[in-house]
Amino acid sequence: MQDDIMHLIKLNNKIFRTTQVYLDRVLKEYELSSGSYPYLLILREHEGISQSRISSELGYDKAMSARTITKLIKLGYLDRKEDEADSRAYKLYLTEKAKVIIPKVLGEIHKLVHLITVDLNDEAKVITIDSLNVILNNIKKIKL
Amino acid sequence: MQDDIMHLIKLNNKIFRTTQVYLDRVLKEYELSSGSYPYLLILREHEGISQSRISSELGYDKAMSARTITKLIKLGYLDRKEDEADSRAYKLYLTEKAKVIIPKVLGEIHKLVHLITVDLNDEAKVITIDSLNVILNNIKKIKL
Repeated sequence: MQDDIMHLIKLNNKIFRTTQVYLDRVLKEYELSSGSYPYLLILREHEGISQSRISSELGYDKAMSARTITKLIKLGYLDRKEDEADSRAYKLYLTEKAKVIIPKVLGEIHKLVHLITVDLNDEAKVITIDSLNVILNNIKKIKL
Repeated sequence: MQDDIMHLIKLNNKIFRTTQVYLDRVLKEYELSSGSYPYLLILREHEGISQSRISSELGYDKAMSARTITKLIKLGYLDRKEDEADSRAYKLYLTEKAKVIIPKVLGEIHKLVHLITVDLNDEAKVITIDSLNVILNNIKKIKL
């Protein structure tokens, strides 16, 4: 039991890598990747937020976020507008093109989650998601 | 419920990123990172395996594995020996220096897992680990 829980990090890392490979492949037709689609989903919930707020929401470093956002603007998925309150800052918005493909991206993620959880019963699903939420909250509380 | 399970990928990604940041910090004193320590742990269980076998066990791409392994050799943690059966291949071994620090690395991982699961009861821990194992096995079965 104590031994099993010690596999938590290893299991989480392996699930991360394998779902990344899967999503990179299925999102390729939209010119998106496992690293870029989360920006569209965050903006769907918070239109007009700043580049630095997106980085902190996603937990990516700022330099990587800047590169991904520039790429998403070139692809026509995002618009960057100067913040009237702070001329050094930019607010980000989804384009019509992004709004059209977001349901398809969500469809791919839902399909993946369905495929990988199909043989878990409802109780196991609820307990697992609850535990992962507890774990994430605990990590955020750790002071180094 | 169906909505909650759809957060699985997002939760997994966030736990991955936040544990990475934590492990990068605590492993710095051993000149290791969240990306390099798994090589030492794999070799602990499979001494003498090849570079390509390590890549596939960890799910890292070969170019990145080659870079990490070269770095671990420079740091004095790994030895690379020519495979007598196949002169193009190399077998990898842990050095004494690696064997000394591995228990400390495992100690840091165990400490992290303890901190983030401390308020989960035993049943939740067992169900969560079992579910993550089921999920990982299901991902491996998906054919694209």
